[in-house]
Amino acid sequence: MATAETKLTYRATVEQYLEAVSSGTATEIAALYAEDATVEDPAGSPPIKGTKAISAFYENTVALDCTTTLLTYREGGRTAAFHFRVTIKTPDSTAVITPIDVMTFDENGKITSMIAIFSDSDYEIS
Amino acid sequence: MATAETKLTYRATVEQYLEAVSSGTATEIAALYAEDATVEDPAGSPPIKGTKAISAFYENTVALDCTTTLLTYREGGRTAAFHFRVTIKTPDSTAVITPIDVMTFDENGKITSMIAIFSDSDYEIS
Repeated sequence: MATAETKLTYRATVEQYLEAVSSGTATEIAALYAEDATVEDPAGSPPIKGTKAISAFYENTVALDCTTTLLTYREGGRTAAFHFRVTIKTPDSTAVITPIDVMTFDENGKITSMIAIFSDSDYEIS
Repeated sequence: MATAETKLTYRATVEQYLEAVSSGTATEIAALYAEDATVEDPAGSPPIKGTKAISAFYENTVALDCTTTLLTYREGGRTAAFHFRVTIKTPDSTAVITPIDVMTFDENGKITSMIAIFSDSDYEIS
């Protein structure tokens, strides 16, 4: 089992992640991941692997005008799951999606894997 | 990506799972799993594997007086994540725990892995 100190680090990393998705850079987000980490976003898509590919992936994310809100956070061992809201604004509409993401961590608190679990039908467009 | 039909099966399986945890038998729960499935409950504990071990594990669960409520369900590809409430009554107290479970499925809709993500600090005892 992880120590209390390590657990705090995981939650802090998730909060840093959500803040960086909202208002950070792709490089800042990628730095939260271990070098050989994998990202499967959305779940069911081919995973991408490694800092370079992960940073390139998040370039698309940070280009969006979006805000994030953590709704529910759970953690056990070196795994964290969190339900959160992403609100994406475009000139024409607002899209809201509330995925459940699952992350695993290494002994240094770096993210070793992320999977974002949601379907296209989960988008609410207004 | 899974088809709409397959997606319905996953959610139905999760609902069957929660119902069986509340009022079914260990054999019924184990039958929802693939033969070589793994269960890590709670996350961070050594995974158990296979129908026999899984059925034995759930004998402890079904012995409890508990009810389950699905709070949030998300799915992508062959992965489902769901936030749910378990209320466990004993003669002396009521314990409520609201984990996030993550399940993967095979092509027949059987559960191939389950990980239950929560910490001891997530219990509410009254």
